[in-house]
Amino acid sequence: MAQRVPYERMLRLLARCLMDRRFSPDRALRCAALFAENSLVGIASHGLNRFPRFLEWIDNGWINPGGIATRVSSHGNLERWDGHLGPGPLLAEQCMQRAIDLASPDSLGCVALRESNHWMRAGSYAWQAADAGLIGLCFTNTEPNVPPWGSVEPKLGNNPFAAAIPRSDGCHILYDGAISQFSYGALETAAQQGKRLPVPGGIANTGEMTDDPAEILASKRALPIGFWKGSGLSLILDLLATILTAGRSTCDLGSQNAEYGVSQVFIAVGARLIDRTASEAIERTLIDLHTARTEDTSSVRYPGEQLYARRIENLRLGIPVDPAAWDDVKRLACE
Amino acid sequence: MAQRVPYERMLRLLARCLMDRRFSPDRALRCAALFAENSLVGIASHGLNRFPRFLEWIDNGWINPGGIATRVSSHGNLERWDGHLGPGPLLAEQCMQRAIDLASPDSLGCVALRESNHWMRAGSYAWQAADAGLIGLCFTNTEPNVPPWGSVEPKLGNNPFAAAIPRSDGCHILYDGAISQFSYGALETAAQQGKRLPVPGGIANTGEMTDDPAEILASKRALPIGFWKGSGLSLILDLLATILTAGRSTCDLGSQNAEYGVSQVFIAVGARLIDRTASEAIERTLIDLHTARTEDTSSVRYPGEQLYARRIENLRLGIPVDPAAWDDVKRLACE
Repeated sequence: MAQRVPYERMLRLLARCLMDRRFSPDRALRCAALFAENSLVGIASHGLNRFPRFLEWIDNGWINPGGIATRVSSHGNLERWDGHLGPGPLLAEQCMQRAIDLASPDSLGCVALRESNHWMRAGSYAWQAADAGLIGLCFTNTEPNVPPWGSVEPKLGNNPFAAAIPRSDGCHILYDGAISQFSYGALETAAQQGKRLPVPGGIANTGEMTDDPAEILASKRALPIGFWKGSGLSLILDLLATILTAGRSTCDLGSQNAEYGVSQVFIAVGARLIDRTASEAIERTLIDLHTARTEDTSSVRYPGEQLYARRIENLRLGIPVDPAAWDDVKRLACE
Repeated sequence: MAQRVPYERMLRLLARCLMDRRFSPDRALRCAALFAENSLVGIASHGLNRFPRFLEWIDNGWINPGGIATRVSSHGNLERWDGHLGPGPLLAEQCMQRAIDLASPDSLGCVALRESNHWMRAGSYAWQAADAGLIGLCFTNTEPNVPPWGSVEPKLGNNPFAAAIPRSDGCHILYDGAISQFSYGALETAAQQGKRLPVPGGIANTGEMTDDPAEILASKRALPIGFWKGSGLSLILDLLATILTAGRSTCDLGSQNAEYGVSQVFIAVGARLIDRTASEAIERTLIDLHTARTEDTSSVRYPGEQLYARRIENLRLGIPVDPAAWDDVKRLACE
């Protein structure tokens, strides 16, 4: 990972690939920006490294480049929208913006989006709300990839969930995580590097818990966070998404040849509710967290704390890229 | 646990104790019903066994028997309420009912309640919404009792969260769990019985993960679900509760002599959104879950599946009680 690429360079290259695939120039640029931003904040697995697969899905007809979300029905400040199988990142950005509008200035807005596609990084859209001064929450269902607790067969999704709490200096608090303890991307990376996981991440074919990522990739038995608890949370997130959207469930997605048409929920909480009292309470909590005693000289970080610093550094120095992944995308752009 | 007590008998005994403590007869009965119901569904730790401590808190002045929630402000279908340090179970029931009213018939309602008290079992109020045909969600913050990931000092709450998805036959899906892998009640019970935990539940004073409940009670280092993930989720739940209610945070609660004045959030989703299509999707998912392959002859259960069956059985046969706990309450009622 010695190579660094300027953000603008990555942005233009990705946008060009999308324009070659019937994206309008402005939509190509927005979608490319969401991918490049993921690499910029250090999540290349959902940025540059994932981009070739995204193009493949467009070429397979599973993603409709021109698909824009349209409103299906309105229920107070909860709305149902249909994504018409458009590009997940653009649909998600559009629907979080709508949730922000519904929540402004001091209420709560919820958009339930069906017929969507993989949005890449959940945190992008929660952060979007935080950048607008609101609390942002979002979650999606996925195809079955986690066995329910007590079972050996993947029936639950890992259903990523993100939440952002805004701070006036832009260093928002951001939780962003799947229900599985480790994503399949993280397992693959660790297996390639021959590394063990820091905690058990799945159950091997022997029936024993293991921290060997290769054994988990072989058994397809990733552990949910909190064992039976994550198993239950996954079901709840899936059913919430399915009911609110009137869209496809994880079970429905499992009967398809690929993961398209997922169900997603976007929630925003109005900016005026985050007044000075609230901001002071947030800062008091973060100071308290930072001063928690540790066993060594390290200090506790809040979720998302490193993201902002990494973004600034990578904007200045360029985005670190896996040279092979970068070459792949250059080839796809016929450079 | 050989002894069984009829539900009505337990209800009357608990209600009498509350009337002795300035609860009006109707409020004594409702509050007693919430405690008795917890024992009825098999969660005695938040029912009969907890009741003496509840009375103690009233006697200490931390719970105000006459405290009723009043509305502070209205923001569309989100409302802020103040519990005036009333009895947690009654406040929670009142505020979930208000969220149900706000959500009816086909929208979303949210009530943020500050100055509340321990509501005993989160699942009670999510279930309340499901019994009314709505989706119910609720969460609360708590005093600091879980160290943030990387720290040895409790700074986060275990912030219980519950979600219920209604089913027409009354066998609702119910997730109900704290952010810690095991509650302190569960750790104490296991330690008394000399049992090991089924999975590691905390970090011992040696710095090693352990499944010995006594070691965790000694170190006060309970593990959050999903390690760093639960640590992040706990912070998010606390800040959401604090901001939405404009109430006390876990950090604020930590500077008090006891855990009173907690912040709680109640969300309901309107019944008309759970139409036939949604109900069919729910049932399809549960059938899929029940048929997941297992390593033995057991079958996978959905969260809350045992609760309903246990309730029916205990209504018929009487509620199993710990004789010592039952005697304690009888003594408190001067029987």
